Amino acid sequence: MQESNYSSEILQYIPFYYVIWSDDLLTTSEINVVQNAIDTDKTLSDKSKAQLFAWLDTYNPPADTELKKWKQTISNSSVKLVESETYPLSAFSQKVVSHYKGNYPLNEQLKQIEIQLGIQPNHYNHLFDVAVSHEATSSFYNAHDIDTILKGKHAKVVDDFRKTLSDPIFKWDVHRNKEEFRQVVLNQVKFLANKGYGAMAYPEAYGGINDMEGYAYMFENMMFADGSLSIKFGVQFGLFGGSIQKLGTKKHHDQYLMETGKAKLLGCFAMTETGHGSNVRGIKTTATYDSKTDQIIIHTPGKNDNKEYIGNALHSKMASVFAQLIVNGKNEGVHAILVPLRNNNHELLPGILVEDNGYKLGLNGVDNGKIWFNQVTVPRENLLNKYGDIKEDGTYYSEIKNPNKRFFTMLGTLVGGRICVARAGLGGAKYALTVAIKHALKRRQFNDSVKIQEDLLIDYPTHQLRLTPLVASAYVYHVALDKMMQQYCDPSQPDKRKIETQVAGLKSIITWYANDTIQECREACGGKGYLIENRIADLKGDVDIFTTFEGDNTVLLLLSAKGVLSDFKSEFNSAGFTAVLKILGIQINDKLTTINPVYTNKVDKDHLYNPKFHKHAFDYRTRRLTYSLAMRIRDYIKKGVPSYQAFLKVQTHLLALGKAYSNELAYTTYCDFVDTMANDKNKALFLKLGTLHALYTLRQDAEWYLEQGYMGGTKSKAIRQRVERLCTELRPHIGVLVDGFGIPDHCMTAPIAIDH
Amino acid sequence: MQESNYSSEILQYIPFYYVIWSDDLLTTSEINVVQNAIDTDKTLSDKSKAQLFAWLDTYNPPADTELKKWKQTISNSSVKLVESETYPLSAFSQKVVSHYKGNYPLNEQLKQIEIQLGIQPNHYNHLFDVAVSHEATSSFYNAHDIDTILKGKHAKVVDDFRKTLSDPIFKWDVHRNKEEFRQVVLNQVKFLANKGYGAMAYPEAYGGINDMEGYAYMFENMMFADGSLSIKFGVQFGLFGGSIQKLGTKKHHDQYLMETGKAKLLGCFAMTETGHGSNVRGIKTTATYDSKTDQIIIHTPGKNDNKEYIGNALHSKMASVFAQLIVNGKNEGVHAILVPLRNNNHELLPGILVEDNGYKLGLNGVDNGKIWFNQVTVPRENLLNKYGDIKEDGTYYSEIKNPNKRFFTMLGTLVGGRICVARAGLGGAKYALTVAIKHALKRRQFNDSVKIQEDLLIDYPTHQLRLTPLVASAYVYHVALDKMMQQYCDPSQPDKRKIETQVAGLKSIITWYANDTIQECREACGGKGYLIENRIADLKGDVDIFTTFEGDNTVLLLLSAKGVLSDFKSEFNSAGFTAVLKILGIQINDKLTTINPVYTNKVDKDHLYNPKFHKHAFDYRTRRLTYSLAMRIRDYIKKGVPSYQAFLKVQTHLLALGKAYSNELAYTTYCDFVDTMANDKNKALFLKLGTLHALYTLRQDAEWYLEQGYMGGTKSKAIRQRVERLCTELRPHIGVLVDGFGIPDHCMTAPIAIDH
Repeated sequence: MQESNYSSEILQYIPFYYVIWSDDLLTTSEINVVQNAIDTDKTLSDKSKAQLFAWLDTYNPPADTELKKWKQTISNSSVKLVESETYPLSAFSQKVVSHYKGNYPLNEQLKQIEIQLGIQPNHYNHLFDVAVSHEATSSFYNAHDIDTILKGKHAKVVDDFRKTLSDPIFKWDVHRNKEEFRQVVLNQVKFLANKGYGAMAYPEAYGGINDMEGYAYMFENMMFADGSLSIKFGVQFGLFGGSIQKLGTKKHHDQYLMETGKAKLLGCFAMTETGHGSNVRGIKTTATYDSKTDQIIIHTPGKNDNKEYIGNALHSKMASVFAQLIVNGKNEGVHAILVPLRNNNHELLPGILVEDNGYKLGLNGVDNGKIWFNQVTVPRENLLNKYGDIKEDGTYYSEIKNPNKRFFTMLGTLVGGRICVARAGLGGAKYALTVAIKHALKRRQFNDSVKIQEDLLIDYPTHQLRLTPLVASAYVYHVALDKMMQQYCDPSQPDKRKIETQVAGLKSIITWYANDTIQECREACGGKGYLIENRIADLKGDVDIFTTFEGDNTVLLLLSAKGVLSDFKSEFNSAGFTAVLKILGIQINDKLTTINPVYTNKVDKDHLYNPKFHKHAFDYRTRRLTYSLAMRIRDYIKKGVPSYQAFLKVQTHLLALGKAYSNELAYTTYCDFVDTMANDKNKALFLKLGTLHALYTLRQDAEWYLEQGYMGGTKSKAIRQRVERLCTELRPHIGVLVDGFGIPDHCMTAPIAIDH
Repeated sequence: MQESNYSSEILQYIPFYYVIWSDDLLTTSEINVVQNAIDTDKTLSDKSKAQLFAWLDTYNPPADTELKKWKQTISNSSVKLVESETYPLSAFSQKVVSHYKGNYPLNEQLKQIEIQLGIQPNHYNHLFDVAVSHEATSSFYNAHDIDTILKGKHAKVVDDFRKTLSDPIFKWDVHRNKEEFRQVVLNQVKFLANKGYGAMAYPEAYGGINDMEGYAYMFENMMFADGSLSIKFGVQFGLFGGSIQKLGTKKHHDQYLMETGKAKLLGCFAMTETGHGSNVRGIKTTATYDSKTDQIIIHTPGKNDNKEYIGNALHSKMASVFAQLIVNGKNEGVHAILVPLRNNNHELLPGILVEDNGYKLGLNGVDNGKIWFNQVTVPRENLLNKYGDIKEDGTYYSEIKNPNKRFFTMLGTLVGGRICVARAGLGGAKYALTVAIKHALKRRQFNDSVKIQEDLLIDYPTHQLRLTPLVASAYVYHVALDKMMQQYCDPSQPDKRKIETQVAGLKSIITWYANDTIQECREACGGKGYLIENRIADLKGDVDIFTTFEGDNTVLLLLSAKGVLSDFKSEFNSAGFTAVLKILGIQINDKLTTINPVYTNKVDKDHLYNPKFHKHAFDYRTRRLTYSLAMRIRDYIKKGVPSYQAFLKVQTHLLALGKAYSNELAYTTYCDFVDTMANDKNKALFLKLGTLHALYTLRQDAEWYLEQGYMGGTKSKAIRQRVERLCTELRPHIGVLVDGFGIPDHCMTAPIAIDH
């Protein structure tokens, strides 16, 4: 035992006070926490309480010399800090007192402070010149429990599928030659089809279990094996099979669906054209009905009107071709027609030309190609005729009279694929985050003079800040996409127009998030992230195109914004502004009255961590942007500016609205889910993740909130500090949080993510 | 001739008024332009002037019905808009008047308005329901002239080198197999060496022309052929050869430099270790001097202490190995030693193990590998002994007594490579921008009901906004890096510490810019950008690692910030905080007094476009961040927080300062250059590019300026609008601006960038 000038009562608080005061983030609500703890601490005399209270006065803080004395007292104790203790700082304090004054009990009030202030070892493990016993990750939360929460009611499907991925056929390897890679992926697709996974979303009569939601989970998990596998699988069963299922009728189902689900009939989805990427309504391929022969003639009119980037084009026997259907000389709009491409010997049929797209930035296991049709004839029955048919008398018939509505109804049935693409992007982000964080929990770099070991990468504030919010967002987006698919599959809600708009926006923000995340992970792993063996490189190449296919993100956000502007009443439409304009008048009045900015400079923790504040801020932005957009468009129209031009002039404004709405949607969906969580401990964790995501997202638009006067400078700064702090608070749990993504060990092949 | 209610005098102004009023960006200074034009228009009667003035009152704007009448009048004229006219709107106005009233002269005042307001065809080509004769690009500026400005005094070197790249050996092709690709690149490197390019930066005695600045230009242009070529070239001649040139003495130069420059001696630069990426001082490889044999023993002590990612490792005969030099049992710090790796039969020498790094995200034409040394002995003479030597008597000697200073002096000699990496990144960005913009000038998408042709991608405001500022930044960064290399090479400034710090920051912001730009271009080209044939995919993979190698960007920005904090007086150092702390006291006082925020809500064009405003804003941010950082660190230190911990706590703040300083440096360097430009027309263009870059960059930190009260909300919004507007103003010249990058036709192989 050495001497100390402080009494035992005071001494036990010294390490806490030193940590608190050397940190410059103390706010009123946090001082309250300490005051309450002291107030109810029965081990303290009134005199000690008075002294401790005095040292809590932010207007008259303890002198620097006092702080130095505290630090000296702690350092001289030579007590070792053990991070693996449940309450490391409280236990450390107890040992410091015991060192100076003999055995002393562990104080419950200190535990309270430690928990409530969220003091984490990395807040103080450099502050004292004492030895630190490190552990990389806390076991306070359980990864398996978290994974179970994320899987929800789909646990069985997911677990079975993950087990399936352990088959050697999915063993990850470097594939540089596209022909060889495509064969590997084709074999994997067939393997999964044989197990029944291909037909999962189809009706039971055709080998399926009618589980589109489970399909989406499986689709995401496929990314853990390989991106090309996901996309090839999606093309075969989701796009080609999906078009037969959703746009065809019983005769098509009976003839093709079973074989498609088993991957015995390989097919492709021929929509996009070289000259018309985003403008599907403007495609040039024609499907002309010839009443004499009762056949449909598929034709590519110009050299840039070929089908482009068609996945599975080299392996397919058949294509679902989107073309302008012309019956009796009248263009009835875009319809899908099944067109055989190759014979049993896999030779191209007459009039069909297929050209390999060659190597791509990623997804080289998918055989993308261009297809030209030169007067190719198919029977009338090959028209997928659920929404538009050619009757036996050779006349066109559709129950949906409005051609616009018909077009968007057809396209709408395929929106499930768009959710799946976002899910796959999310899966890629989860994988990259897991690699980067496992690496950061092992890799050390630099050190100070006191410690022998260098610091773990994850213990650098910059490293925490670059990765932790992205982990939090993965949780939010997971829940948002899960609920979106649930609604999409809900047969009690037949009108999917609103969901289509929502999916358009979510797909955009989430695939951009996925790309940003994978890039951040690449850089966070340094040179190791650049090596193919560590998997991030492939993910980067594969996920990149997710921002473009299944709808270009920019175009989708514009659609999304138009949906918001028209209160989801207009057609899901890229060029038709009429419907939007019609109801603009109502919108403008509706939205204005509800805007009521508050809390401009409220910065206490309770407020900043309250989901009500986040929701209000998200909602305010959506409403405000809607209002100002509507006003601008109305003014243009009043001046006689054509509506096409008016919408062009506000294009960047529309993008902002599309994003704002999608951000709000993702977060409110997540909050609704967290509200239903039963377990308080995990609920608190999910709440914290949501808070980090929300504050981080609001920070992205901080300049806008400041411009609007919705936030003052003090609040904006406080949010930035809270984001950094939340990252620190989550530091001990970051390992468990990525393990909670549930990526099976047999898929986690990156050497830097594996303990050797 | 039809009738119109307006007089000819009024009528000629109608198209202008309609364009002006349907746009909502009119500010006081712009109204002044129109007022002045009218005031001095001798063709106008006083009555007409009064009418036109009345229609300029923003407090009492013309009625919507008036605007509609204007539009009707214009549309009814059926006059065709010809974009290729020098003054398209003025010419259009003249024709409208002539249509209604008979031949009417072209009004000079209208031309003035058109020029001074920067009214571009895409401001109005949808506004009137008239036919538009399009041209994609204006010929007002000349691409060759711009290229000449960018090349400056290095025109001959650049032009010769670009011609050299037309040799079939540089013909771009897809290379998937790394062995084959590496051989292709090796042959290219040898080809260039034979032409004398390898030795360019070496003294004339060794086959060179002592032109490091020209070398940097060549290095950037090499990216137009292939990224692997640049990097392989840089490793051989810049890193390996550079270490001999800069760290060795005459005996090394005589023995190796000529052969190195000719690529007859292939070498690698073995600095980085698996366990020590960014912490070079902490590398573990030892070089122990054995006085008995007069030899140095190179040894890799642990399994993670191998050299890692060593470019040219598979092809090299020799390595420049960085190791802890131990003489007489004393560690004298990191030194470089030449170590033969292979014999003439290309077999590894005893004790040396090399392992291929395998496939990477990009740069697969570069043979990166790991190297282990097991007690490998080399003669004492192989120590590159310019800054530290082992004398004949076996004692260590260095003129630089301070080991820290010695270490950073050695590393400092290699800073030229860091500039070259930034240049190469910039070259990649220029290439991607050229592809994306040439594509956007050809590709059409969607349209309105009036026009037959769909719009060009580049005519969408979102597309302009995503690409134009990046083009502007390429100009700014080009100039900044050029001037930086000039200073680095200036023998009259022997102390390079400040330049090292500046290079650290510029390398970071520019390689990040390059990656963001290439990604934006990929997405802007949609699916076409994903195909390898269009070159953006390879650039994405190749340039990605530029953010990590030659110094991790995050680590470099921290160094840069410490340089700013210490006013460039401290060692260029990642771990030593002492020097920084010593002068912090002075800094804090110095900086505070000079902060004087002004113009909080000044939004007129003259102010917002004035470089003085931009410089003031950049400078304010650097100073303010320096001040607040210094205050925070001082407070921590006062409380007894160890300096290592104090710097950790402010790490994200340091990053912000590093970026802010680098942004300021790039822009002020650019402005200094523009000031020297002789040709007024081109000078105005460069000024406009600088303004766009500056406002765009300031927008990135808008939330900070708002938080600080440096800008009010109105100003922040005005800057955003000005950025969009400048993009529109530059629209007709965007084709010339990318042609000005001077990428030779034989390198521009992307099919989407070529006119077929």
